[in-house]
Amino acid sequence: MIASMLPVVLQVIGYHIPAVADTHRVPFRPLMSATAAVEPQGRVVPTQIPFDDGCTYQDRTPKTLKEKIVVLGSGWAAVKFVQNIDTTKYDVSIISPRNFFLFTPFLPSVTVGTVEGRSIVEPIRKLVQYDARPITRKIKDRFAGVEEETFEEARFVEAMCTKIDPSMNRVYCQDVSSVAGTCDTFSLDYDKLVIAIGATSNTFNTPGVKENALFLKEIQDATVIRSRILDAFETASQKETKEEKQQLLEFVVVGAGPTGVEFAAELDDYIREDLFNLYPEEVAAARVVLISSSDDLLSSYDKKISDFTMKVLEESRVELRTGVRVTEVTKDSVVCKDKKTGETFAESSSLTLWSTGVKPVPLLEDVIAQIPEQTKRSGLFVDSTLKAYGMENVYALGDCATVYSGNAMQNELAQLFTKADADGSGTLDKAELLSLFGKIADKYPQAEVFENRIKEDDVFEQFDDDGSGELDMDEFRDLLAEVDSMLRSLPPTAQVAGQQGGYLASLLNGETTAGFKYFHKGSMAYVGQEKAAAQVSMLKSILPEPVQALAGPLGEDIVLTGGLAEIVWKALYLDMQISNRNKAQVAFDWIKVAMFGRDTSRY
Amino acid sequence: MIASMLPVVLQVIGYHIPAVADTHRVPFRPLMSATAAVEPQGRVVPTQIPFDDGCTYQDRTPKTLKEKIVVLGSGWAAVKFVQNIDTTKYDVSIISPRNFFLFTPFLPSVTVGTVEGRSIVEPIRKLVQYDARPITRKIKDRFAGVEEETFEEARFVEAMCTKIDPSMNRVYCQDVSSVAGTCDTFSLDYDKLVIAIGATSNTFNTPGVKENALFLKEIQDATVIRSRILDAFETASQKETKEEKQQLLEFVVVGAGPTGVEFAAELDDYIREDLFNLYPEEVAAARVVLISSSDDLLSSYDKKISDFTMKVLEESRVELRTGVRVTEVTKDSVVCKDKKTGETFAESSSLTLWSTGVKPVPLLEDVIAQIPEQTKRSGLFVDSTLKAYGMENVYALGDCATVYSGNAMQNELAQLFTKADADGSGTLDKAELLSLFGKIADKYPQAEVFENRIKEDDVFEQFDDDGSGELDMDEFRDLLAEVDSMLRSLPPTAQVAGQQGGYLASLLNGETTAGFKYFHKGSMAYVGQEKAAAQVSMLKSILPEPVQALAGPLGEDIVLTGGLAEIVWKALYLDMQISNRNKAQVAFDWIKVAMFGRDTSRY
Ligand SMILES: Cc1cc2nc3c(=O)[nH]c(=O)nc-3n(C[C@H](O)[C@H](O)[C@H](O)COP(=O)(O)OP(=O)(O)OC[C@H]3O[C@@H](n4cnc5c(N)ncnc54)[C@H](O)[C@@H]3O)c2cc1C
Ligand SMILES: Cc1cc2nc3c(=O)[nH]c(=O)nc-3n(C[C@H](O)[C@H](O)[C@H](O)COP(=O)(O)OP(=O)(O)OC[C@H]3O[C@@H](n4cnc5c(N)ncnc54)[C@H](O)[C@@H]3O)c2cc1C
Repeated sequence: MIASMLPVVLQVIGYHIPAVADTHRVPFRPLMSATAAVEPQGRVVPTQIPFDDGCTYQDRTPKTLKEKIVVLGSGWAAVKFVQNIDTTKYDVSIISPRNFFLFTPFLPSVTVGTVEGRSIVEPIRKLVQYDARPITRKIKDRFAGVEEETFEEARFVEAMCTKIDPSMNRVYCQDVSSVAGTCDTFSLDYDKLVIAIGATSNTFNTPGVKENALFLKEIQDATVIRSRILDAFETASQKETKEEKQQLLEFVVVGAGPTGVEFAAELDDYIREDLFNLYPEEVAAARVVLISSSDDLLSSYDKKISDFTMKVLEESRVELRTGVRVTEVTKDSVVCKDKKTGETFAESSSLTLWSTGVKPVPLLEDVIAQIPEQTKRSGLFVDSTLKAYGMENVYALGDCATVYSGNAMQNELAQLFTKADADGSGTLDKAELLSLFGKIADKYPQAEVFENRIKEDDVFEQFDDDGSGELDMDEFRDLLAEVDSMLRSLPPTAQVAGQQGGYLASLLNGETTAGFKYFHKGSMAYVGQEKAAAQVSMLKSILPEPVQALAGPLGEDIVLTGGLAEIVWKALYLDMQISNRNKAQVAFDWIKVAMFGRDTSRY
Repeated sequence: MIASMLPVVLQVIGYHIPAVADTHRVPFRPLMSATAAVEPQGRVVPTQIPFDDGCTYQDRTPKTLKEKIVVLGSGWAAVKFVQNIDTTKYDVSIISPRNFFLFTPFLPSVTVGTVEGRSIVEPIRKLVQYDARPITRKIKDRFAGVEEETFEEARFVEAMCTKIDPSMNRVYCQDVSSVAGTCDTFSLDYDKLVIAIGATSNTFNTPGVKENALFLKEIQDATVIRSRILDAFETASQKETKEEKQQLLEFVVVGAGPTGVEFAAELDDYIREDLFNLYPEEVAAARVVLISSSDDLLSSYDKKISDFTMKVLEESRVELRTGVRVTEVTKDSVVCKDKKTGETFAESSSLTLWSTGVKPVPLLEDVIAQIPEQTKRSGLFVDSTLKAYGMENVYALGDCATVYSGNAMQNELAQLFTKADADGSGTLDKAELLSLFGKIADKYPQAEVFENRIKEDDVFEQFDDDGSGELDMDEFRDLLAEVDSMLRSLPPTAQVAGQQGGYLASLLNGETTAGFKYFHKGSMAYVGQEKAAAQVSMLKSILPEPVQALAGPLGEDIVLTGGLAEIVWKALYLDMQISNRNKAQVAFDWIKVAMFGRDTSRY
């Protein structure tokens, strides 16, 4: 039954998540600075000058008559782009320090072994092959006369881009892995540059986070966390008192977006289902604390989902701390401030996972700082065709991009006001405003971020110029202008990144000229105890947009919670796996865990 | 069909292998010296004195009225011992830095992903549970009134033994993992100590090996090798000329025992079956070189097997260098000396795997040096009940033990002479001697090591006192005395270690008083291209020993080579997996590789 549902809900996925990135920990040597680049070997070389003195930045620009596209990254955005680009038109090179695609939604599962790391990775070199292209693309290719035999693959280079020089249409790269050969730096010239390098964890400059917290972004992060959890249980088992044991077993998760919630939920499952049998006394001493800066969890989701998640987690071992701002992370504690009471307290912690949001990687900050038109700090600012402002031939997509979202909300001022004014009073109180923002998050992703600010900070009061406790139409207009100008207009999700990748390929292929439009297909989260929460835009995801409005209740979101949602969650995510090998592996992992439990070998 | 064969050939396994160990790389802080111990924190403490000043070697001896057994190690020997020991009689503590058992025969497969690491590990805490005990043991337990509910489990402590003090019946340990808590050192008193800590790689003091070669002993080693291989292919793909590519893709394996041969064979499979499609130009440049110090491969096996292996590898990409001694390993080469011609040459190498043999770990060398009765340098010298000479209550088994083998060969002087003297001349020439040693390796494992020495060195000449080119009976007797005194009397195999574990449990349980007798059940090796070689003592493995001699040809070994042997190889090894989870995983891994190939994601 589930299987027969699949075609219908195919690729329905994604949630709004402040994804945590930590590309810092991809081992790499110092980046070049904006004005002078310190070469790994210590030679200082001026930037924006091409080198070819033996080993210093060999020019590896491909010799081709076609237009040259260089893609940076091998994540969601890059892969969807590459799988859809017309390689008869373009010569495509992909640069990434990671030679595989990673199915990030399952990273929380990998930290405890519900799914194995190898099950959710797939080599880029396989994904660029003809066979791996989506069927829709293959049909287009076929019309263009491209068959498997004549298909030209994109080239993959395992290296890190260390500098982008838009004035020269050139990128500088370095092989940062342990086997790097003698000449590990090179440059490539492009006709079009597609930047899809993701983002890094935002610590909000909170002291101690970088030194003392773990992040969850790459497969190695999950491996380290898995080993650390077991190591803590093994060491605790050597201690005699409950206090000593507890000291080693305090797991604190900062950030209650999907990554934080799913990690806490998976950890709770693991403790209850597997560790309990092997470490009973230690399990009695263990604690899992989840800290949320807002008053609820998964605050960007439908309220039904966030309430349900709260309920499920309250029934678990996970201790919730909501409405709390973290002011410092130390070696063995997380220092917190209650937003309402202003009270300061410390949660002792033996392992802190930081999962609060993302910001651009240094390479990109470097570019942003150099280009005057780059006015956003949250990512490379691009227009609706994903072309970067102030640069020629440079496109950005996925977590590293900030798309211009126009004045969408202001344009609908009147309708939104009417929709919000539930009591027809002609003014909006805070409750009415929040309720509106809760309803429209799908259509206006920028509203989500703002919704939290209304809840947490005194934003409402700022816009309530006359202090009446209500916003009139003018005050509401000002507020919408602010919302529209929100730095990050689209959430950093796989869904956004993937759609942008597909879109940009169509644009460059000449199959569309319109701007990018994000289409939210739904959100899902696993909340533990074999329960999930899913908000699936059932019909929306298959009907053409104009028809959706007509579809009435069927066009509405379906919110599923509990055990059934878990089945949907599993079916959808299984179907989303990028290769048949991944599908088989993940399915086998789940069956295996159901039959034998998770492996607790520590390595 | 295969499945129905399984009960018959159950547990038929093992081969003679110079296993490579490198426990050095289990991260650990300095060992205490023999007379004064430098504590990790830098405090110098005299040995053989109990400490209890806060954190320094807390006494963690269990409070119990039962006799206390401390087991060091969680490998083949330790696990088989613990699964068979009577826990109503003994309080059992297991100390090992590795909280899991590792199925070493599949480590070569893990280096290329034919089998995944997680598939061949199983947590010790699961293996000590009632459920995991062998059925034969459960029956005995049942007779002793032990049921699942009343069964007392052995205790596991994840730590490394850093010093053994036999005079105090005490071991000193340290939690050497990254989560170690505040007090990471402790001591345990024992009534009986069971040492099963395996062995480490023997570099024979060859210069440069430790610095430049890789070893294959732990799961992390396999992970590192897997990543290094792919890293080399990725970097090579960035180079333009075949020479540059080749420089990065020269894989040299030193040692043609089962580990070396299987690694070379798996690597060749990997290159041909998986990497060829993704890195065609690099594959054309890649080289695999296998260096053997003797004139053949797998020299401890039946000659049919070693010939077959040679033939299969000659048809592959693997380049064989036989009769070669390695004199040095540098960063990018392996320096060799042809034993016959004396000629010196260098094989360039970008990755050198060293797999030539084992020697005791430093902890054990320390003990051996302190006890005058410990006269062997190859391991802790134990009598036929596995009790260490010169120490009370200390037993050793597996790779770390050297069992006294008596004068077994000298006792059969006359028969052996007759058997050897094929031409009935009354004297033995070198060929007759070698042929004899080839035939009797099963019964006298000590003969194996010696056989190689006859082949490679001028041992024959040494014993041929009168220089006649033939050995007479007296000369032969002297030679047998030397063979009997061979340092390592049993090969360092899982088969020996496991049998010793089971035996020692029976002895201590009071179920036997006889000495340990090794029973060779057969040898198998995977030689690549879906071919294996197996020498299975078919009937021998199920018949009681006295009956075997009567069984005639059926009692003989069966030697299988080729595709059928691979099926037997797979069936037997699958059956040997230590848990049902392992069985399911390994089977799934094989199916997956057959369907989708091996994963080439590098991490
Ligand atoms: C634990 C976790 C769970 C998540 N769960 C979900 C979910 O369930 N649903 C959902 O929609 N989203 C989820 N996300 C968010 C989602 O993963 C991201 O939004 C998505 O990965 C963004 O895609 P991207 O292509 O922009 O970047 P990424 O997928 O992060 O890819 C970035 C790529 O760029 C490469 N790169 C980095 N620096 C350089 C450089 N200097 N040069 C060249 N290459 C470089 C990286 O190696 C990588 O290949 C999750 C994120 C995390 C961390
Ligand atoms: C790659 C490879 C392939 C092999 N293939 C085969 C095969 O096919 N057939 C076969 O019969 N044999 C095979 N062997 C040999 C076989 O693995 C060994 O003979 C066997 O493991 C020996 O068992 P053991 O219990 O003595 O030692 P091990 O299995 O090595 O176990 C030693 C244990 O001691 C622990 N330890 C180490 N130091 C300390 C310390 N200071 N304190 C406490 N614990 C410590 C280790 O963590 C480990 O748990 C292979 C070996 C290798 C490396």
